[in-house]
Amino acid sequence: MRGSLRRLTPPQWLVSLFIIAILIGTGLLKLDFATTEPISWLDALFTSASAMTVTGLIVVDTGSVFTLFGEIVILFLIQLGGLGIMTFAVLIFLLLGKKIGLKERLLVKQALNQNALGGIVLLVKRLFFFSITVEMIAVILLSLTWGPEMGWGQGIYASIFHSISAFNNAGFSIWGDSLSAYVQHPVITVVISFLFIIGGLGFTVVFDSWKTKEFHHLSLHTKIMLVGTLVLNIVSVFIIFILEMNNPSTLGQLSDFGKWQASYFQAVTPRTAGFNTLSISELEHSTLFYLITLMFIGGGSASTAGGIKLTTALIIILATVSFLKEREYVVAFERNIRMHLVMRALSLALLSIMVVIITVFLLNLTERAPFLDILFESVSAFGTVGLSMGLTPELSVAGKWIIIVTMLVGKLGPLTFAFAFSKPAKDVVRYPGEDVFTG
Amino acid sequence: MRGSLRRLTPPQWLVSLFIIAILIGTGLLKLDFATTEPISWLDALFTSASAMTVTGLIVVDTGSVFTLFGEIVILFLIQLGGLGIMTFAVLIFLLLGKKIGLKERLLVKQALNQNALGGIVLLVKRLFFFSITVEMIAVILLSLTWGPEMGWGQGIYASIFHSISAFNNAGFSIWGDSLSAYVQHPVITVVISFLFIIGGLGFTVVFDSWKTKEFHHLSLHTKIMLVGTLVLNIVSVFIIFILEMNNPSTLGQLSDFGKWQASYFQAVTPRTAGFNTLSISELEHSTLFYLITLMFIGGGSASTAGGIKLTTALIIILATVSFLKEREYVVAFERNIRMHLVMRALSLALLSIMVVIITVFLLNLTERAPFLDILFESVSAFGTVGLSMGLTPELSVAGKWIIIVTMLVGKLGPLTFAFAFSKPAKDVVRYPGEDVFTG
Ligand SMILES: [K+]
Ligand SMILES: [K+]
Repeated sequence: MRGSLRRLTPPQWLVSLFIIAILIGTGLLKLDFATTEPISWLDALFTSASAMTVTGLIVVDTGSVFTLFGEIVILFLIQLGGLGIMTFAVLIFLLLGKKIGLKERLLVKQALNQNALGGIVLLVKRLFFFSITVEMIAVILLSLTWGPEMGWGQGIYASIFHSISAFNNAGFSIWGDSLSAYVQHPVITVVISFLFIIGGLGFTVVFDSWKTKEFHHLSLHTKIMLVGTLVLNIVSVFIIFILEMNNPSTLGQLSDFGKWQASYFQAVTPRTAGFNTLSISELEHSTLFYLITLMFIGGGSASTAGGIKLTTALIIILATVSFLKEREYVVAFERNIRMHLVMRALSLALLSIMVVIITVFLLNLTERAPFLDILFESVSAFGTVGLSMGLTPELSVAGKWIIIVTMLVGKLGPLTFAFAFSKPAKDVVRYPGEDVFTG
Repeated sequence: MRGSLRRLTPPQWLVSLFIIAILIGTGLLKLDFATTEPISWLDALFTSASAMTVTGLIVVDTGSVFTLFGEIVILFLIQLGGLGIMTFAVLIFLLLGKKIGLKERLLVKQALNQNALGGIVLLVKRLFFFSITVEMIAVILLSLTWGPEMGWGQGIYASIFHSISAFNNAGFSIWGDSLSAYVQHPVITVVISFLFIIGGLGFTVVFDSWKTKEFHHLSLHTKIMLVGTLVLNIVSVFIIFILEMNNPSTLGQLSDFGKWQASYFQAVTPRTAGFNTLSISELEHSTLFYLITLMFIGGGSASTAGGIKLTTALIIILATVSFLKEREYVVAFERNIRMHLVMRALSLALLSIMVVIITVFLLNLTERAPFLDILFESVSAFGTVGLSMGLTPELSVAGKWIIIVTMLVGKLGPLTFAFAFSKPAKDVVRYPGEDVFTG
């Protein structure tokens, strides 16, 4: 047993530990004093998985069904899932990111066993310190609003809950309508959105931006993430504003300033915070479809966000631009991107699309619901976003199991699963080349 | 003017000629004696574009609205579009397929100007001969059923119409319910399906299979197409059978043998023939979603079929398998596939997904229809399939324009459009490499 445990590869470790944590969380949430009314084992499992994968899809109302103990269990799972993934992400990147060629693998092994092991401990320390600091500042800022509003005890508790939930891109709220009550509140929307944007950029990006004074000297990864996030968010604000400004159920009822504020929040939350200040099911179909693409793209690597990641999407786009421009290399910010990374992005995108397709296909078999609702909920689960058109609480038993698996695969990444179950090819034969017609 | 015409690149030529042919077709279909009742210019344009792109989506019923003259115009457009694309495809492949590096381009130019020009003329001759022969044989076989059934004059005419429509994967029928009346008729379903499968494999595959005795000696392209088509078709028959066997509106009403026959026909027609023997709008949501993926994949390169093409889909899958197996090269049937082809497949898939996303997004703005109907019709137009859940005849004016553009882009291929409007990058700088985190 000990021998076979030792033989687990890092991806296998990651999957196993995650599942164990979810099961422990399930047991705790099923305790009598965790809920105000009895919930099923499946609903406890669903909630535990949703918290641990920082998704935020819910089958029972968090605020009314769970006691303070239950909510603290959820918060712990969120923090564990969010931080754990970030920590593991660092390790996994070092191990998986370079998975080609014996030479490179030897390099990585060396790097891990000698220099980098010290570096990793330092990295993890920084990561914890960074997370706690950001969350603390946010708790103070939120308390200044919520303390006077609902009494300091309840106000500080709400601030802690939403601060941790936001920084980890978890999207859990103790209120049934998420943050809808604060759709026009400047402090709440700004603090919460800054929390999940910083968490979703990834701490390497934040550290790099903090240390480096000139844009020119930033790492390529940081440049892509900062510019990509900024451009995508600004474009999304305008698209949502235009699509929804005349919708009486969403922006139509707000002031001009409130319209922009709500558009901003709804534009940044799908990648992949999952809070909402507008009623998702009332949005236009075109807006919902746009949100689905945002949810699929997601946030940054080694961050608390999900999705295929912004860098993955951009590398695929840059590779296509290079092909069309007949360039021999993929170029970004005057840097070449290795072909191996392009193949990694391609593989990740394909596997992700397959996961979503299978989820949508199966849910169409198990649920009687409009197709758009199923597609929305599937991508929300895969991207660990947590936005919902209202299907999740209505799911059948089979449907809940499908979403649980999708959240898990989405959070750990389909590549992690694929590597956990795949074996390297043994052949080292180099075959002759031959062309095929495409398209 | 003559100078600027001469400066058109092959992709620009292709797009221009296609649009001119569609406009001439529009004028002919708008003539008084082409229709039994007046139709709008837009409906004439839609029908002409649908025929020329061999899609088969219709806004007016072909059999009742068009006169014999109108139907013959449609047949001519189908044959022109089907053959024209195949002929052009040969030229385009030679020009585009190798679009990297100056050395290779010089090689291709040389090949085109000297040796290959004779080869191309021969190829085109064979292509015409092949098409006419296959269509003639089918006309005879179909007439033997339809002649006695509806009188020889009408029977032979119906045979010619459906033979040309099927071989060119056009999906046009002179009957409002397509081939639904023949759902359990063995000769009709077999002859029609063989026509569009052969047309959809591409004539290079058929020629290669004809000439080569042993599987081992076939070209890699032919191997992939034959095995891929066979596997995908067989899997699809079983999936459709299982999903629909208890649906009283589709398979439920048929005999056991009829169930298999209808499953077979519905499994092979989405790539991208577009005939139907079952009522599409009555299919289960899961079946419809499966058909959408089949329609997106499509048939073979240099064939009458549309979609991203089977080879494109398989190369992307093989590239992912290679990445997961930590192989340095993409391998199929003991042959290496060049990285340039992988990049081509990746670019084509991304551009295709973008075209579908934009079409779906715009139709959600212009139409009041369920999301699944819009998605189905969009992919059907992009893949030039012609299957319909019933949305097309109900489209708004804007919606018709959107579908017209999508059919055109789908038939000529998004890469053709991208190359028609793109210019090669002028820089020859080789930038330093830098890595980015993905996923
Ligand atoms: K979330
Ligand atoms: K068709």
